[in-house]
Amino acid sequence: MSKISINYIGEVVKLETNYTLLRIYEEYCKGLSGIEAYSHIHIIYWLHKRDNPENRKVLMVIPKRHQTNEVIGVFACRSPSRPNPIGLSTVELISKNQCELKVKGLDALIGTPVLDIKPYSPRSESIPNAITPEWIEKGPKH
Amino acid sequence: MSKISINYIGEVVKLETNYTLLRIYEEYCKGLSGIEAYSHIHIIYWLHKRDNPENRKVLMVIPKRHQTNEVIGVFACRSPSRPNPIGLSTVELISKNQCELKVKGLDALIGTPVLDIKPYSPRSESIPNAITPEWIEKGPKH
Repeated sequence: MSKISINYIGEVVKLETNYTLLRIYEEYCKGLSGIEAYSHIHIIYWLHKRDNPENRKVLMVIPKRHQTNEVIGVFACRSPSRPNPIGLSTVELISKNQCELKVKGLDALIGTPVLDIKPYSPRSESIPNAITPEWIEKGPKH
Repeated sequence: MSKISINYIGEVVKLETNYTLLRIYEEYCKGLSGIEAYSHIHIIYWLHKRDNPENRKVLMVIPKRHQTNEVIGVFACRSPSRPNPIGLSTVELISKNQCELKVKGLDALIGTPVLDIKPYSPRSESIPNAITPEWIEKGPKH
């Protein structure tokens, strides 16, 4: 266990049916300059509700939402219970308004701390023929 | 600045021309079960050489490797200097041998701490028509 100093750069402030609103804290807001040129971005966040010793001990899960009974390692699925409860979502960037980003496709609770934001680049990250086990294509997207 | 307890789950142990070798620590190794069913995975790592107050203050950069002179926010590019020096790479999983993963496409130094591994799912992460600024398509992939 190592202690890393992480700056929460922002948080989820609003959940609506069609979008999620992120607020980036004033001191980091400048880092968003130019982000409106992208249609999609990655949000890296902290699954703070899973940040407890029990959930962080979990190494194997049954991804039931995906209609499978297989027992899978947490690094082979998107289980929020994992040694470091880091969330990663690729979302559509709808709009930017000063320090706020309106995004689509982020399934996170209000108050979820944001750790980093990175632009999505189809050149290296769009891999339509990537192979996955069959069960992951069933149920929710993550 | 918040302190989060992060478990380093492994590290980069070998860099070869055609692949990078990651070793996941024994205590987390079980979490890799089933990962061999995927052709591509995300590696989330810690850019430990940039973990210093100067690099973490950077909010604007000129991504020169991309042949641009534009000044861009760090959240709108892949600059390793950023408030939280988290790295994210989508890589090809060549093979798994017990606690070791041989991957292709990870541009990280030996000793780089690994924070998390997640499977790549083309259903939600392959967005071939995602819009980016022109400069990002020039120069290195990240």
